[in-house]
Order: sequence, then structure tokens, then C-alpha cells
Amino acid sequence: MKNKIRIAILGGDARYLEMTKKLAENNHFELEVVGFDQLNEGFFGVKQTDLEDLSVEELDAVILPVTGIDEDGKINAVFSNQKIHLSTDWFERLSKHVVMFTGISTPYLAEQIATHGLKLIPLMNRDDVAIYNAVPTTEGAIMLAIQHTNFTIHDANVFVLGLGRVGMTVANKFNGLGANVFVGARKASDLARVNEMGLNGFHLDEITTYTESCDILINTIPASIVTSDVLKTIKSNALIIDLASKPGGVDFAYAKKRGITAIHALGLPGRVAPKTAGEILAKVINQCIL
Amino acid sequence: MKNKIRIAILGGDARYLEMTKKLAENNHFELEVVGFDQLNEGFFGVKQTDLEDLSVEELDAVILPVTGIDEDGKINAVFSNQKIHLSTDWFERLSKHVVMFTGISTPYLAEQIATHGLKLIPLMNRDDVAIYNAVPTTEGAIMLAIQHTNFTIHDANVFVLGLGRVGMTVANKFNGLGANVFVGARKASDLARVNEMGLNGFHLDEITTYTESCDILINTIPASIVTSDVLKTIKSNALIIDLASKPGGVDFAYAKKRGITAIHALGLPGRVAPKTAGEILAKVINQCIL
Amino acid sequence: MKNKIRIAILGGDARYLEMTKKLAENNHFELEVVGFDQLNEGFFGVKQTDLEDLSVEELDAVILPVTGIDEDGKINAVFSNQKIHLSTDWFERLSKHVVMFTGISTPYLAEQIATHGLKLIPLMNRDDVAIYNAVPTTEGAIMLAIQHTNFTIHDANVFVLGLGRVGMTVANKFNGLGANVFVGARKASDLARVNEMGLNGFHLDEITTYTESCDILINTIPASIVTSDVLKTIKSNALIIDLASKPGGVDFAYAKKRGITAIHALGLPGRVAPKTAGEILAKVINQCIL
Amino acid sequence: MKNKIRIAILGGDARYLEMTKKLAENNHFELEVVGFDQLNEGFFGVKQTDLEDLSVEELDAVILPVTGIDEDGKINAVFSNQKIHLSTDWFERLSKHVVMFTGISTPYLAEQIATHGLKLIPLMNRDDVAIYNAVPTTEGAIMLAIQHTNFTIHDANVFVLGLGRVGMTVANKFNGLGANVFVGARKASDLARVNEMGLNGFHLDEITTYTESCDILINTIPASIVTSDVLKTIKSNALIIDLASKPGGVDFAYAKKRGITAIHALGLPGRVAPKTAGEILAKVINQCIL
Ligand SMILES: NC(=O)c1ccc[n+]([C@@H]2O[C@H](COP(=O)([O-])OP(=O)(O)OC[C@H]3O[C@@H](n4cnc5c(N)ncnc54)[C@H](OP(=O)(O)O)[C@@H]3O)[C@@H](O)[C@H]2O)c1
Ligand SMILES: NC(=O)c1ccc[n+]([C@@H]2O[C@H](COP(=O)([O-])OP(=O)(O)OC[C@H]3O[C@@H](n4cnc5c(N)ncnc54)[C@H](OP(=O)(O)O)[C@@H]3O)[C@@H](O)[C@H]2O)c1
Ligand SMILES: NC(=O)c1ccc[n+]([C@@H]2O[C@H](COP(=O)([O-])OP(=O)(O)OC[C@H]3O[C@@H](n4cnc5c(N)ncnc54)[C@H](OP(=O)(O)O)[C@@H]3O)[C@@H](O)[C@H]2O)c1
Ligand SMILES: NC(=O)c1ccc[n+]([C@@H]2O[C@H](COP(=O)([O-])OP(=O)(O)OC[C@H]3O[C@@H](n4cnc5c(N)ncnc54)[C@H](OP(=O)(O)O)[C@@H]3O)[C@@H](O)[C@H]2O)c1
Repeated sequence: MKNKIRIAILGGDARYLEMTKKLAENNHFELEVVGFDQLNEGFFGVKQTDLEDLSVEELDAVILPVTGIDEDGKINAVFSNQKIHLSTDWFERLSKHVVMFTGISTPYLAEQIATHGLKLIPLMNRDDVAIYNAVPTTEGAIMLAIQHTNFTIHDANVFVLGLGRVGMTVANKFNGLGANVFVGARKASDLARVNEMGLNGFHLDEITTYTESCDILINTIPASIVTSDVLKTIKSNALIIDLASKPGGVDFAYAKKRGITAIHALGLPGRVAPKTAGEILAKVINQCIL
Repeated sequence: MKNKIRIAILGGDARYLEMTKKLAENNHFELEVVGFDQLNEGFFGVKQTDLEDLSVEELDAVILPVTGIDEDGKINAVFSNQKIHLSTDWFERLSKHVVMFTGISTPYLAEQIATHGLKLIPLMNRDDVAIYNAVPTTEGAIMLAIQHTNFTIHDANVFVLGLGRVGMTVANKFNGLGANVFVGARKASDLARVNEMGLNGFHLDEITTYTESCDILINTIPASIVTSDVLKTIKSNALIIDLASKPGGVDFAYAKKRGITAIHALGLPGRVAPKTAGEILAKVINQCIL
Repeated sequence: MKNKIRIAILGGDARYLEMTKKLAENNHFELEVVGFDQLNEGFFGVKQTDLEDLSVEELDAVILPVTGIDEDGKINAVFSNQKIHLSTDWFERLSKHVVMFTGISTPYLAEQIATHGLKLIPLMNRDDVAIYNAVPTTEGAIMLAIQHTNFTIHDANVFVLGLGRVGMTVANKFNGLGANVFVGARKASDLARVNEMGLNGFHLDEITTYTESCDILINTIPASIVTSDVLKTIKSNALIIDLASKPGGVDFAYAKKRGITAIHALGLPGRVAPKTAGEILAKVINQCIL
Repeated sequence: MKNKIRIAILGGDARYLEMTKKLAENNHFELEVVGFDQLNEGFFGVKQTDLEDLSVEELDAVILPVTGIDEDGKINAVFSNQKIHLSTDWFERLSKHVVMFTGISTPYLAEQIATHGLKLIPLMNRDDVAIYNAVPTTEGAIMLAIQHTNFTIHDANVFVLGLGRVGMTVANKFNGLGANVFVGARKASDLARVNEMGLNGFHLDEITTYTESCDILINTIPASIVTSDVLKTIKSNALIIDLASKPGGVDFAYAKKRGITAIHALGLPGRVAPKTAGEILAKVINQCIL
């Protein structure tokens, strides 16, 4: 009889609840969770342990929080008051075949991985995770667009900057809601795809010749794109939603000066759909382990 | 030279600001507004008057609030502290060719109209207004669905009850967001249309054989449809949004008992998109007058 | 034990093959077919009979061809060389509770029904059948549009006249293919629905102010709509597809004079998708009988 | 004053008519065409020349047929009876700054380009051209699917193999027509995108567990994918359309043996929409030259 795959989940946020439930459905896995002590024992039907009680040497996989490990070796566990610290000694005890999952890599984590010759899978870097997460991200943007405007998305002129993994989904879904979608991109192939999607495309170099009609602008480009020059052309009752990671792509100070509402909306999957976000992680971890 | 059409707008809410602006763009119209005295004079560029200063005899059209006139003859003016009362004498002074607009007719109003032989257009009864308003109503439902669930609309099983003016739009837009939409209706032709829309249809008589898989239920039928028998089949983490006018179609007490979140969401166009709602009114009034 | 429902299928075309197969799956039914003698015995697994061998008195339902009965009492049976004639005597023998199905009623048939006090269901008059058939009709129009133009439907300006059962589907599907769809209608509520569908609407009275940009025009209105005045405004390399029943809504003679390709495309469901068309008939007959 | 850009178009098929017309609209260009002598002089309003009369030394750009140059140096000119041969001497006369366009590169052409140090743009290799052409390709597949089945695309189970430039458009458009689309791919990110598009995805390794339900299979993968093992699982009344370039991805001999209709449909843009295909070429050439 084949042995079960032993997996430890160390810390994490609301997404990890659903992720753990889903992983627990796979009966090839034997799970233990650390850092969920504020939850009722029966919550997942999964064994809760303290870090020191974990049989570290026998683990096949370790799942760290989406945020990785901070510079002091601590991890984030929102359902625990304990401090969870993963020392060099702790990493030393891990078997060489262990697979570590994290959302993003961090300097401390990268160093441990290198030192001990381990395998790290930073989930948020994966194309499939980014595409799956684009859906809850977009729903978050839709919610904000409805909340922060006094007009409908339907028939509004919605500008989407970037046609990457998030941008394509944002463009698709706002189109599905009846907006007039304009996509700004810099690659000829992206503009061809925009045309194929039945949307209006423009080259980012010419953005200011289009933005006057913009009602809602959604930026997905992690670069300084919505500069003061662009903002000058935008109506003061337009809404700007910046989805790009810090520092974002919008000159927020200038937007404020012009009286334009500009929202830097980060971490949307975990905020609007932690259950879905957890299922996404479980699905991909499942595929990576099997 | 043709005379201008003289229109008085008496009271109203946020929707009436945009409506007034739009009507003011038509230069065949001469507008006066009563009941907006809390707003800055220059706000619309439209003349503000008191009821007593209005040349009632010369009016061609009168626009009453969406809510009509209450049993005491008073109208609702959210941008004024004054009480506006339309007496039988006031109606007596109106020209016989005047057209009166209201959202809904009310007993007092109906009586005045009958007594004085006037023409009344209750806008909210009109098919075109109901269809245009279905869009902001649906966006309101989408916002609620994103806010009150921890999963995405995408891939969720969304049940829409009724394929009337609102139901068709709700079904269309949730489909546009990637939900698996199931529509319950009672007419064979509605079920045929559901199939043509690429959605799943079921006869309302058989609702309980389907509802177990329901993640979000949106009712548009103004009749007791989501009874305790139906609610018994629904998962406790499902979300119910009832859009039907009071008293709605959901057994809210029973839903509460079962721990199911059930929201009776009324007046959504005015809440989520007053500007669009105002434009809709202006568009239809324009067509009715011209 | 409940008796089976006895159904005779008399004549019919390719659609009736699939219809018969589907009805035969219902084991409450006992089927006999007349007028399919050119087909192999085992084709349907359904009993083939001659008209004279039919136990007419015992029938519960009779299914006539889509085209009904001609003025001489003959029916159309494309899979037979025999002449099938339904005389007054034959009708006389039918039980009073029998249900007769036909596509359309015809004078001879209507007279027999009236004389003998029978129940007739002309399937093509039903809303549900018309909506289901709108799908294969539209696919036929799509095929013609691809065949008879040298440009793509995607990005073409496609004008749809009428927003009835066929028009709505035509508009929906051409939109799904990326066309810029313009719908002409005369009802304010239809124009509201067109807006909600995310399409461009215009009042039929103003058609000539829009048609200059038209690449493909699809008429669904059974009235003289595409007159010489309209045709004058249309580009000579545009394509016109008239779906309306005879005589259609297009001035074909004038179109020819102007060198515009105009196709009167009738009976599309039976031509492009007889299997689907047969399934539709079976589905609705099933619902009517049960 | 800036000089005009001198462009020679040498040979080509129906697509080149529209392409030439579109390029002629750009008044920075001075065009000459060779190999269109069967057409009326006034057809394009563009100067027709013989190869020997061309001022080769002064050209800024040369546009060759989509098919490039054959091994003997000849090019394909469907609107001419003349043989057009481009010798090494002819290439020698070209200025070093000339840009040459072709659909695909060929050995003879590649050699000339290398020998004379010229710049060649094989249009069909470009991502943007492939994406634009995916649209007429897909419309061709739609036409074939309607013609060669007796059921509707709506509600049919349509399998699309590959989610490249063509596959994505095929999947999108058949979805737009109401098919149940299943996409087979091998990359996890492609399967994530399929989910985001609201379609069903499966890994190509598991294709045979899905194909039993397939009504229409459309292959876009230029590799042996639809093998006899796959064909064994497919219904004999299913339709297979292979879009992949020669030799395609389908075991046609085996399909024939099993009685399955399998069509190898190549060159669809030029066949179903030469005007659009020509516009695509003109658009991209314009962008490359400017
Ligand atoms: N707010 C949230 O909740 C949330 C959720 C998920 C992701 N995100 C963030 O959203 C952003 C986009 O994520 P993604 O997955 O879509 O990334 P992606 O697939 O890499 O797409 C990035 C897009 O930005 C464009 N771009 C990058 N640099 C550019 C520049 N200098 N000028 C013009 N265009 C440029 C890229 O175009 P090229 O292809 O031409 O380079 C591409 O279209 C990231 O910052 C990500 O962290 C936020
Ligand atoms: N929440 C908001 O902000 C908001 C906004 C707009 C409208 N509304 C309300 O939403 C409701 C629907 O409006 P609408 O414009 O869509 O109305 P509608 O066009 O009349 O549609 C009503 C639908 O309910 C069905 N129905 C009515 N009585 C039924 C019964 N006893 N059993 C089964 N089905 C029944 C109708 O089916 P049949 O065709 O078979 O009768 C139809 O599909 C109304 O109460 C309206 O006041 C609310
Ligand atoms: N070619 C085929 O294979 C095929 C297949 C199915 C049906 N058909 C034919 O297609 C036609 C449409 O069928 P349908 O089921 O869509 O019918 P329908 O539901 O009755 O729709 C007819 C449409 O035409 C409009 N209309 C009628 N008379 C008009 C007039 N005088 N002026 C302006 N608009 C007018 C109606 O508008 P209002 O609502 O304002 O009256 C409605 O939008 C019929 O002739 C039918 O026999 C053909
Ligand atoms: N019939 C016509 O009129 C017409 C028109 C245009 C194009 N075409 C032809 O259609 C085909 C597709 O063109 P395209 O532009 O879509 O190409 P593409 O963008 O390169 O896409 C090719 C697809 O095939 C997949 N693939 C390739 N080799 C594979 C293998 N061994 N196993 C599994 N999947 C494989 C690729 O997946 P990965 O990303 O995983 O490699 C990708 O999804 C080409 O042969 C092209 O010449 C035909």
C-alpha cells in the first residue's frame, strides 16, 4: 500500500480555510495545520498542531502563507495569536525531497531554499494562478465600479490599460456587462486580439487622444502609465481603479488635486472571494503534487 | 415662431437632477423647478420657483416625483424643506391639454386626474421604462452578490426566477459574468427563450428538484414563490436577493430561521445609478412630449 | 395498468425522421407511421403501416405534415410514392378526443376540424416553436451571410429589421459573432430591449438615415419594409437576406435593378438542421400530449 | 516636402485587390502593380506596370504574393497570364533599404534576401496577422459546420483542440453561437484561460475520456492529435474540421474507414473573406512601413 503524502500548512488567511478543506478531500493527503488555533477543532476536520509538535523530517510538502516569510523568519497566521518562526534549523530538518509552496518568494525564504537545496513553488508567479485569480480580481473591480459611480457600467466608456492576464479578464467581463470597452496596449498582437474580442483598441502612446470620453479607467499595468498628462484629459467625475501592485500606475496625488476619485484596490481575490481564492490554490497545489 | 413647451418639475429625488439637466438640453423646452431650493441656484442652469409663483395656467407639462402624490396631496421633494401641497384648486387651474408625468399613480392623484379630465403618464408602468431600469436594477443585484458572498459569480449556480423585463436582464448579465444561470418560469415560450439564450430553464412547478445546487437565487416574481418548501432545499450558505416589490416573493422569516442570508433589495436604480435613472426618465419624457 | 397513447404520423419530410425517433423514446407512446415506405423497415424501429390498415378509431393523436393538408385532402409525404388522401369519411372515423397536430392550418383541414369537432394544434403558430425554430433559422442566415459576402460578419454593420421571435435571435447571434448590430423596430419597448442587449436601435420610420453604412441587411418583418426608397440608400455590395414569409418584405425587383444581392431564404430550419427541427417538434408534441 | 514611399506589388490573389485599394488610400504611398493585367485599367486607380518597366532601383518596398517565390524564382499572379520571374539580377538592383513583404518565406526567397542583405517581413509569421486571420478562418469553420451537419451549432458539443491564435477565436465564436464548447490543451495556463472564458477544458492527454459526446470537432493543432484511438471514441455522425496546415492533425484515412466526415479546410481567409483578408494585410503593412 502506498504511503500518504504528508503536508503541513503553516499559517495563512481566510483563503487557506477553503484551500485546506479542498486539500482534505484528497485522500492521498495527510494534512496538519499550524496557526489556526483560534478556530474550533472541528472546523476543517483537519489535525491542528503546534510548530514544535510537527514531525518536520517526515513532511512531503509545506504550504506557507501567500505572503511568504518575513525578514525575521516569521510567517503570517491570521487565525492564531502565536508567533510562528521558521529558523534555519527548522529548514535544516526538512527532507531534501520536500516541496514548499508560498504565494510570493521573499529574501529570507529564497535564502533558506538556496541554502538547503529545496524546491520552492511561488504560486502567485504561476500563469495559471494569475489567470484564475484574474476572475475574483475583476469581480472586485466591478463591485467598486458600481459602488463608486452614479451611472451604470452598461453603456459607460470603460478604459482598460494592459491586456495581460488580469487586463484580458477585466476587458472580457466589463464587455459582458454592456460597457463600451477600450483597451490600451503596446503590442500589435494585443491590439489584434482586442479587435478579435470585439472591443476598441488603442496604442498606449496615443492614450491622451482617447481618454476624454472615459467614464471608468481600470489600470492593470505595473508602471507609471496614468500620469498627470493623462489625468489632465480625464473628466473629473470619472472613476479610476488601479489594480497594479504597489506603487501602482496612477499619479494618485495629481488625481486628488484634480478631484478625480482614484482607488488603489489591491488583494481583491482574498477580499471579495476568499473561498474561490482558496479553491484556486488547492486546485493548483493538487496538480503540482500529483 | 413656435412657442416653447413649458414644463414644471415639482419635487423629486437624486434622479431628478440628471433628468432635469437632460431635459434642459432640449431647447424646445422652458423648464421651471419647484422643490430644489437646497441646491445652489446655478446647479442646473434652470429657473427655481416657489409653487405659488408658478404660472400654472400656462404649463404644457408637469413632472411629479416618482412616488406620485400622497393621500394628503403632498409630494416628496428631497432637496427642499418646504411642504409642497397640490390642492384640488391647483389642479383646477391647469390647462386641459397639460400632460402630467409621475412614477406611479396614487389614489389622490388618480382622483384629481379623473375629476379634471387630465392626461397622466405613470412612467414606471411603461414597458420601455421598466426595461431601461432593469439594467441599473441588475447592476445593483450584481453588487450585492459580490459583496455578500465569499465566492465568485463566475462559475456559481445562479437561479433567476421570472423572465419578465427584470428577469431577462438579470439572466443576461449574470451569464455575461460567467455564472451558470438557471431560469425558472411558467410559460413554455419563456422556457424556449431561455434555451435560445443558452441558459438552463426549468418550470417553476419543479423548482425544488433544482434548487439544491443553487449558490445565488434572485427572485423577480411579485408572488409568493420562494416558500419554506423551496427554502428547505437551499444550502445555508446560499445568498437570496429578492427584487420583487413589496411584499416580495421570499419567506424571509423562514430564511432567517434556516440561517440563509436573504436581502429584499428595492429601489436599486435610484440607489446605484441615479444619474442613469434620471437619463432614462428624461429620454422617455422627451419621446412622450415630442 | 394504464394504456399506451396511440399516435399516427402521416407523411412528413426529413424533420419527421428525427421527430419520430424522439417520440419513439417515450414508452408511454405507441407509434405508427404512414408514408415512409421508401425507408428501410428498421430505420426508426417504428411500425410502418398503410393508411387503410390504420385503426383510425383507436388513435389518441394524429401528426400531419408541417404543411398541413392541401385543398384536395392530400398530404405531403416525401418518403413515399403513394398518394395519401384524408377524406371526410376518414375524419369521421376519428375518436372525438383525438388531438391533431399540423405545422400550419389550411382551409381543408380547418373545415374538417370544425365539421368533426376535433382539436387542432398548429405547431408553427405556437410561440415556443417559433422561438426554438428561430435558432436554426438564424444559423441558416449566418451560413448565407458567410457564403455570399467577401468580408467577415465580424466588424460588419448588420441591420436586423424586426425584434420578434426570429429578429431577437438573429440580433443576438450576429452580435455573438462580433458584428455591429443595428436593430430597426417600431415599439419603444423593443428599442429599450435593443439598448439592454448592448445593440444599436433605430425607429423604422428613420431607417433611411442609417442604412447607408449597412453591409448585411436581414429582414424578419412580414410587411413591405425594404422598399425602393430604402434600397436607394444601400451600398450595391451589401447583402440582403429576407427571412419573412412570402411575399417577404423586400422589393426584390428593385434590388435586382440596383445590382444588390437579395436572397429570399425560406424554410431554413428544415434545410439547415432537419434533425434539430425534428427534435423541436417532438419536444413540443410531448409537452402537449402529457 | 517629403518624398512619397514607392511600393511595388508583384502578383497575388483576390486578397491583393482589397489590400491594394486600402494601401492606395494612404497618400504617402506611390503604388505600382505588376501582374494584374487581366483587370480593367481603372479597377484600383493604381498604375499597372510590367516587371521590366518598373524602376526597381527607386523602390522603398516590394510586396510579394502570400505564397512567396517558388524554387525557380517565379511568383503567383492569378490576375495575369504572364510569367513573373524575379532573378538574382533583379534583386541586385534593389536599394539596400528596401523592405520586402511576403506571406511566407520560401527557400529561393530566403536565399535572395540573405545574398543581398535585404529586410524580409513574412506576414503570415506575425502574431498580429495570425490573430486577425483567425476571424475569417473561424467564420469559414462556422460555415462548414452549418453546411455539413443536420443539427444546429447551438446546443451542440463542439470540441476545439488547441488554444493558440486560431483555437482561441474558434472557441470564442462557437461559444457566441450557443455551442457547449470543450477545449483541449496541454498547458495549465491554457486550461485556466479556458475556465475564465466560461468554457469546459480538458488536458489533451485525457481526450478520449471526453470525445464520446462530441458532435463537432475542430482541430487547430499542427500535430498528429486526432489519431485512430481518438476516432474510435467519436460518433459516426460527428463532423471533424481540421484547420491545421498540411498534413493536418487528423488520421483522415481512419476517419473515412469509420464513416466520419472529416474535412481538411485550408486557406479559409482567402476563400470566405478575401476582402477582409486583404484589409488585414494592408493594415499591417501600413504599420510596418510607417
Ligand atoms: N489588485 C489585485 O487584487 C490584483 C490581483 C492580481 C494581480 N494584480 C496585479 O495586477 C498587475 C497585472 O497583473 P497581470 O497578471 O495581468 O500581469 P501581466 O500578465 O504581466 O500583464 C501586465 C500587462 O502590463 C503591460 N505592461 C507592463 N509594463 C508595461 C509598460 N512599461 N508599458 C506598457 N505596458 C506594460 C504588459 O504588456 P506587455 O505584454 O506589452 O509587456 C501586460 O499587458 C500586476 O501588478 C499584479 O500584481 C492585482
Ligand atoms: N428591486 C428593484 O430595484 C426593482 C426594480 C425594477 C422592478 N422591480 C420589481 O421587480 C418585479 C418584476 O418586475 P418586471 O418589470 O420584471 O415585471 P414583469 O415584466 O411583469 O415580470 C414579472 C415576471 O414574474 C412572473 N410572474 C408573475 N406572477 C407570477 C406567478 N404568480 N407565478 C409565476 N410567475 C409569475 C411573470 O411571468 P408570466 O409572464 O408567466 O406572468 C414574469 O416573468 C416587480 O415586482 C417590480 O416592481 C424591482
Ligand atoms: N425564413 C425562415 O426560415 C423562417 C423561419 C421562421 C420564421 N420565418 C418568418 O419570419 C417572419 C418573422 O417571424 P417571427 O416569429 O419573428 O414573427 P413575430 O414574432 O411576429 O415578429 C414579427 C416582427 O415584425 C414586426 N412587424 C410586423 N408587422 C410590422 C409592420 N407593419 N411594421 C413594422 N414592424 C412590423 C413586429 O413588430 P411589432 O411587435 O411592433 O408588431 C415584430 O418585431 C415571419 O414571416 C415568419 O413566417 C421565416
Ligand atoms: N485553415 C485555415 O484557413 C488556417 C488559417 C490560419 C491558420 N491555420 C493553421 O492553423 C494552425 C494553428 O494556427 P495558430 O495560429 O493557432 O497557431 P498557434 O498560435 O501556434 O497555436 C497552435 C496550438 O497548437 C498547440 N500545439 C502545437 N503542437 C502541439 C502538440 N504537439 N501537442 C499539443 N498541442 C500542440 C499549441 O499549444 P502549446 O502552446 O501548448 O504549444 C497551440 O495551442 C496552424 O497549422 C496554422 O497554419 C489554418
